[in-house]
Parts: sequence; structure tokens; C-alpha cells
Amino acid sequence: MNLNNSDTNSGRFFEDYAVGDLIAHATPRTLTEADASLYISLYPTRFALQSSKEFAKNCGLKDRPLDDLIVFHTVFGKTVPDISINAVANLGYAEGKFSNTVFAGETISVTSEIIGLKQNSNGKTGIVYVNTRGKNSTGETILEYKRWVMVRKRFLGVKDIPSNLPHLKTSLDGSELNIPEKLDFTKYDTNAAGSKKSFNDYRVGQLIDHIDGNTICEADHLFATRLWQNNSKVHFDINAREDRKRLVYGGHVISLVRALSFNGLENAQMIIGINGGTHANPVFANDTIYCWSEVLDKIDLNIRNIAALRLRTVGAKDKNHSMIVASGDGKYLPSIVLDFDYWVLIPKGL
Amino acid sequence: MNLNNSDTNSGRFFEDYAVGDLIAHATPRTLTEADASLYISLYPTRFALQSSKEFAKNCGLKDRPLDDLIVFHTVFGKTVPDISINAVANLGYAEGKFSNTVFAGETISVTSEIIGLKQNSNGKTGIVYVNTRGKNSTGETILEYKRWVMVRKRFLGVKDIPSNLPHLKTSLDGSELNIPEKLDFTKYDTNAAGSKKSFNDYRVGQLIDHIDGNTICEADHLFATRLWQNNSKVHFDINAREDRKRLVYGGHVISLVRALSFNGLENAQMIIGINGGTHANPVFANDTIYCWSEVLDKIDLNIRNIAALRLRTVGAKDKNHSMIVASGDGKYLPSIVLDFDYWVLIPKGL
Amino acid sequence: MNLNNSDTNSGRFFEDYAVGDLIAHATPRTLTEADASLYISLYPTRFALQSSKEFAKNCGLKDRPLDDLIVFHTVFGKTVPDISINAVANLGYAEGKFSNTVFAGETISVTSEIIGLKQNSNGKTGIVYVNTRGKNSTGETILEYKRWVMVRKRFLGVKDIPSNLPHLKTSLDGSELNIPEKLDFTKYDTNAAGSKKSFNDYRVGQLIDHIDGNTICEADHLFATRLWQNNSKVHFDINAREDRKRLVYGGHVISLVRALSFNGLENAQMIIGINGGTHANPVFANDTIYCWSEVLDKIDLNIRNIAALRLRTVGAKDKNHSMIVASGDGKYLPSIVLDFDYWVLIPKGL
Repeated sequence: MNLNNSDTNSGRFFEDYAVGDLIAHATPRTLTEADASLYISLYPTRFALQSSKEFAKNCGLKDRPLDDLIVFHTVFGKTVPDISINAVANLGYAEGKFSNTVFAGETISVTSEIIGLKQNSNGKTGIVYVNTRGKNSTGETILEYKRWVMVRKRFLGVKDIPSNLPHLKTSLDGSELNIPEKLDFTKYDTNAAGSKKSFNDYRVGQLIDHIDGNTICEADHLFATRLWQNNSKVHFDINAREDRKRLVYGGHVISLVRALSFNGLENAQMIIGINGGTHANPVFANDTIYCWSEVLDKIDLNIRNIAALRLRTVGAKDKNHSMIVASGDGKYLPSIVLDFDYWVLIPKGL
Repeated sequence: MNLNNSDTNSGRFFEDYAVGDLIAHATPRTLTEADASLYISLYPTRFALQSSKEFAKNCGLKDRPLDDLIVFHTVFGKTVPDISINAVANLGYAEGKFSNTVFAGETISVTSEIIGLKQNSNGKTGIVYVNTRGKNSTGETILEYKRWVMVRKRFLGVKDIPSNLPHLKTSLDGSELNIPEKLDFTKYDTNAAGSKKSFNDYRVGQLIDHIDGNTICEADHLFATRLWQNNSKVHFDINAREDRKRLVYGGHVISLVRALSFNGLENAQMIIGINGGTHANPVFANDTIYCWSEVLDKIDLNIRNIAALRLRTVGAKDKNHSMIVASGDGKYLPSIVLDFDYWVLIPKGL
Repeated sequence: MNLNNSDTNSGRFFEDYAVGDLIAHATPRTLTEADASLYISLYPTRFALQSSKEFAKNCGLKDRPLDDLIVFHTVFGKTVPDISINAVANLGYAEGKFSNTVFAGETISVTSEIIGLKQNSNGKTGIVYVNTRGKNSTGETILEYKRWVMVRKRFLGVKDIPSNLPHLKTSLDGSELNIPEKLDFTKYDTNAAGSKKSFNDYRVGQLIDHIDGNTICEADHLFATRLWQNNSKVHFDINAREDRKRLVYGGHVISLVRALSFNGLENAQMIIGINGGTHANPVFANDTIYCWSEVLDKIDLNIRNIAALRLRTVGAKDKNHSMIVASGDGKYLPSIVLDFDYWVLIPKGL
């Protein structure tokens, strides 16, 4: 299927997808140390592993890795022209697995397979499920995740086609977490990392208020979203939405909240899995974001002092959030902007 | 002529130029991979050649080249303190030739020769014509172009000096286009590039609406214009203009429009020549820019599957532009901001 | 003393410091060429030594050095979580010595020693004096400076503890200036540098109006301050101050003023010492900053054509500043934002 026969590409609609289609996304991207510096200038991140080459070497790596979320956003951005340019909503993520650490100099290319389709009863939209895979220069998978989006139909009405829904896991289990081959937390430098809190100091059910807030500036999300070569109109063109506001890319909020979570999770050095994520309410420039985390699960990976925490980090536009996510009827409060469920690697003991 | 004898440099006026003067501009600049990443964060560009090292190698180059417009802006920026700091208007460009591809790590230095002078009848201003040349670390010319600007006079009145106007070509012809020595489009990867449209698919006279728009944020042009070390006051100091607005550097609009033209010109991988450019109306933050292109000419360069298109890309502040440039009297419509005439390299067949 | 026992770190208060305490600050930072490019995109800097690898090599260095102020801000930023997160005011700097030039690729780590403590009579605050030291990857000191800040007390009231005030020099003398080992100004390229003015052309008492102004955009200081991993709330969270304005980091103003001082001090290539600095009034986005310098002292360092100027550069929010710092009663005018006293290296003769 080649949609580029017309002069310009206005993107796919629901009818343009079939289960089993494999889409090679355009514009591979070479990531460099510049992306690491830009990431620091875009988000208030202070995790030592991505900041210091020396710290990373002391943890067994050949260099400081690029932030996992640089990898996520780059992979995600490539899919936008083919998957979500006509999307009404980004509904969810599942089974995100980081499988090879990415270092400066590698080129990322991305493909997506259509794994599910479901028409909505309103006849205007349908849901497209994709499995997206990012690869490095040598063809190894670096990140794979499932995502589902609500996409506009080209023609109104519901056709007599059965739905085809993929199975999606609620969470990756420990055996699915890919520990970077040489990562080693046995000689961990707690002074450089900024904390002595290890896996052993966290308990399932624990709530951590990360305290710090950050007011998003229009340039913050524009520079970031362009850096990932994400060309979704709603982020860039004030004529794309009726309210003439530029919607902040949901991934920008993930990165912001992850950076703010440093205060309380200083040693949660790498995101290794993404179980799910909901962008509960839209975010715009001038919103001030706060966040807290809940420890959902713990696994001792039994190797080189490495363990994993399953975290749920919630972003809120409200400083006085009291760590409450939903109202009595189970709906997200209007102030909640992100509900993110993920696995991090952390030293077992320090 | 040394104008730096006083404590500070308030720039040259019309009387300070003589035909034949050669000016070595200050502050050579080493360009790096960081400039490539910053360029991506500043403009919504998705051309594969500048984004992916692997794609560039597959096209015969040793690395991904720096965007041609990074080179143009860097060269242009160096000339500002000596040529246009007291300019009233940037009137035009001609005969822009990119002659050696620039890669990360090279240092650009710039000289300009005064090639023409003409007093205006109002006695307040004159027109200065320059031939500007950028060189790389080994002294090879990387870009040469002619430009003319209207410059304030130091003293009012018209002196009895004959005008001296250079000959300026309307367009470079095919023999003046410098094909990068090793560039090769015979093994071109259309999946990575995002389109199968080649030289053969475009026809002279064809109009292409690039659809996408982008609302300029104040930081966008400030960060970009500083990156090129362009110190023109009107871009940075709200006291420099009576309306207290910061004028967007014209080159910023060229880069924005070029990036938006990806949708429809995905394989137009390199700008190789600049025939002319008019900044038809000023641009300010919060303007939303759209664009379209007209194919003005086509040349098969008969080597390694490389061909050239001569394009006219027009930028407009109006989403409903209908691809109309001028009103009945031949004047640019108030919504038109850029009229840019240039040559690109594109695969001949795919 | 480990303040990280609670879930999150709300920072130290006056009572948490004792003279002699040595604090290892978190998150060492690898600096790269990207930081050099970002610096150029953040500040209108045009000094040749930091811009051009070729110029730097011609001055005896192995590469272009990272701007001295990149080093200063990186070192400063690390100290914020431990020293000034609960600070009411940043009171002053003294004895800042740059002792090893920093190049791309080096990792900076930072420690501070508490060298003085003084309670304020209001019982609400006290003054903490620190000696901060930044080191490179090989453990060499790259920058050392003293700083004092007013910090909130945890408990109200004045305790019966004697003050302990360090001795602070008004200015470094010539013997304390560390000339970079291989720096050599004997083959200096005045065309590339943009001026022929040398040490010999400046006189003690001379005032230089740098003319150019720059209006600060919100993104300017946010991107910069994050780049230095400075997490002070007042810069980022509009809820941190009653006026809901984001305070511009004082160091941002130092860098802006230093960049503007190029016009008149083109050959003042390196800051080698910081004698003192006062952030006389707060700066916010949309302020337009101008500056001027006074030559306070001159030293011929008698080696490889290198000399030093002691400069006082003053930043003002007022274009019509007339180079006046204070009113009749000796207080800073409300328009004055920075009073910075420092040593620069400059060619002795050209």
C-alpha cells in the first residue's frame, strides 16, 4: 500500500490498515551526545547514569547510555506520520520492553505491525493496535511496545467486519525484563547518585511524593517534540484545534514526570519496561506539573546487585494533589495528566 | 579600514564600503553533531540524508552531511556585524552555490567582497552588493552567494559618485551545480526516505501544497538566530523597532518552509543552489507558516542516478492560501512571507 | 549526615550545616561539544576561542575550550540541592579561580566545604559560607570559588553559638591567576577574533559601553538553567514565588552580559578569575539587558603575549543607563541587575 501517490501525504485513515500490515517508518535518526545534552536542557533530570560517563563506566557500561525515554520518543515519533497523524486519541501502551541499551552514535529505524482493529459504534472512528519495534544500526531490537490509538475513518458508517483484538498483558513479569548485558551495580557510587536508598528500602504499596513542580513553557514541548521528529499537527499548528492551543505531546509529560521523580527515586537508574500509560487529561503550556509514585511490585533479579521496582508514577497539575488519582466514581480527577506504570532497575542493596 | 578603533563597534554605514573591499568576518565557527540535533529541535525537518548516518553512507557520503541551511545560516550570520547591522532591508540573494558538503567537525570562516554600490535618491540609504564566501578548515569554498542590502548612510544627501551594479544571474544553470563528489543515488532506500517519488514523477509547472503548518514560538527564532551567531539587533532587542516586536530572521523562515516541504518533496535531499529569495513581509512570533512549491525546471545530471529540480517554494501566513502569491497589481499579498527559488538534488528514478 | 532518610529530600536548613563539613554533590556531568553549541544558542556569544577549534589550536590549545561560564554554571548547579535549595538570597562570590581548562568529553564532579556560619539577628535565617571545588575526570581541580548564601532556619530563634566568618579577598592578585599551560597569544589571528585591541589599548579607569541589548525570553533561562542541572524551585515553578514569576538564575545574567561585552572586549578570550558578583535586582523574562565595563586593573603576565585585565561589568535593564551604578545614597539603582568583578586573559600586544 503506497499512499504517497498523490502530491502530498495526508496520512492513513482507519480503512487504510489491515491486520498483519508491516509499515517501515520514514527517516531513521542517528542519535548523538547532543541529544543527551538537549534532553538535560529540556527536562530537569539528574539521574547519574545518563549524566556521567564515569558513573556509567563504574556501572559496567562502555559509555553513558542515552536516556531510555530519548529512545522511546524517537521510536514513537517515527510512527506518527503513519499511525497517529489522523488520530483522535492516543489510548494506551502495553508490553514496552527495552532490550538493548542505546549509546551516542547509533541510528534508530522503526517498523510497526498492525496487530488489531476495532470499529467504534459511532461509525466515525476505529481503534488501531500496533506493535512497534525500534532497531539500532546493527539491526538489533532496542525497544518494542504495543500501542492503540483511535483513528478517524475515511468514510462514515460501520462495516460488517469482525473486530480483531490483540491480547495485552497488564504487566511484564520479571523474566521479560532485559537486563543490559554488562550492567553492574556492585561498585555503585552513592555520593554521585545522590542517595543511599536501594531496592531494600522500598516496600510494595509505598507512596512517594516527589515534591518538586515544573511549569511548562511553550518552547519546552515544541523543541522536544521536534527533536523526536514527531510531526503531529496538534502540537505545532494553532489552527489544528478549535481552542487554538498547542497540545503538549504526552511523552513530554512522561519525561518531565520521570525527571521530577529523581527526588525520592534517585537510584532508579533505568526504565526497563513500560506496562501501561494513560494521558488522563490534556496538558498545555503554563501548566505546572507535580507527581508522586506508588511502588507496585519488587523483583530481585539476582545478578550483579541489580533489582527491579514496578512503579506507578502519577502526574498532576495540582500542587495540593494529596496523591489522589480518581474521584469516587473511579474517573480520573481533572487535575491528573498522566498515570504511568513501568519497571526500573535499581541497586538491590547499598 | 579598521572601524574598531573606538571602544565599541557600531557597524559600517554606506560610506564605509568601496567596491573591491574584501572583509574577513570575525568568529569562525566549528560546526558539530550538536548543530545537527539542534537543527532538528528548531525545525520540523525529516529528510533522511541529514537525519541518518546509515542513510547517508548508503548514498556514498562518509557521514550524514550538515543541513545545507545550517551552512547557509552560519555563513550569513558571520557577515551581519560587517554588512547588515545597519541595514534597513535585506533585498535579495543570487547565485548561491554549495560547492563542498560540510560534515560535523569542520570550522567555517567567511569573507565578503564588495561588488556593487548604489546610492538611493532619498539620500538616506544606499544599496551594497556583496559576494560572500564560506570556507572549511582546509580552505575549500563550501558556499558562495551574492546578496544585496539597503544600508543607512552616515551622512544625508546624494554624492556625485556613479553607481556600480554587478551582473546577477536569474538562475544558475545545470553546469554550475556542484554535485558532491561521492554522492550516489543508485542504491537509494525509499522506505527510509519516506517516498518513492523521483525526478521522473515531477513535471515543470507542477504545484505542490505542503499542507502542514507551524506556529512560530518566540524561542524558536531566538535560539536559531543566536546559533548562527547572527547579532542583528532587530531579532533580539525589543527596543530596536518602534513596534517593540522581535523580527524573525528571514533565514529562519527559509528553514521552516524547507522543513515543511518534506511533505511532497521527501526525496529532495540537498539544496545545491540558491537562485533568489525575497522576504516579502515580516514574520513575528505567533505567526503560523504554511507553504507550497512550484517546479520551475528539471535537469537530469546524468550521473549516479542524480537529477536536479529547480523549485520555487512560497511561505504564507495564511492556511487558506490557494497557492496565490500576488494580487492583480503584481504585489505580494500581505500574507506572503517568503518567495524562495533554489535547486535541489533528487534521485532520477526510483 | 544523611538527609535522604525520608522518602524525599526537602533540602538542608541553616541548622544542618557545621563548619568543616564536606559535601559531595550528586550527579556528576559529562560535558560535550553539544554543551558548546547549546551555549551559543542560549547566549549571543562571539568570542573566537570558544567558537573555533582552529582558532584555539592557533592559540596553543588542543581543542576549543568549553566556555569558562559553562564550567562555572555546571559546578554551581551541582551545589544547589545541598546549599541553596532553601536559600533566601545568593549573597556573593569571591576568590573564583579557574585552574584547568575544560574540553568536551570531561566529566565534572563537585564538592563543597562549609567554611563559615553566621546567624542573622531576625532568628529566621543565617548565612552559610562554602568553598566549592569542581574536578575533572582525572581529579584535577578545574574551578574553585567561595560563595555565601542566606539560608532559612528550621527553627526560629537565635542560638548562643559564635559566628565563624571566613577571610575573603577583595580580588585575586596576579600570582593567583592560573594561565592555561599551553595557551599562547603570540600568533593571534585578529581577523578571526574581530578586533586589534589588545591589553596595551586599555587603560585603568576606562569605561566601555557595550551598546547591544538582549530581551530575555522565558525559554532562554529555563533551557539554560536546566542544562546546568540547577533545580532551584524559583526558576521553574510559578508557585514558588508569591508573584508567580519565574526568577532568572543569576548566572544566566552573567553569561548574557559576558556575551554582550564582546562588542568592545573582543579579545578578552577567557575568564580566569572571579573576584566578586552581586545580583543587585531580580531579572525576569521580557527584561532587556544592556551592559558596560570598567577596567579596574591590568597585569602583564609576561609569558607568551598573555596579559590580564580586571574588569567590572555591570548589567542594567535600562538602555539609557549612562553607565551609572548607584544613586546618591550608594544603593544600586533599581535598573542595575549585575555587578561582576573578574579577570580575563587578553593578548598583550597585537
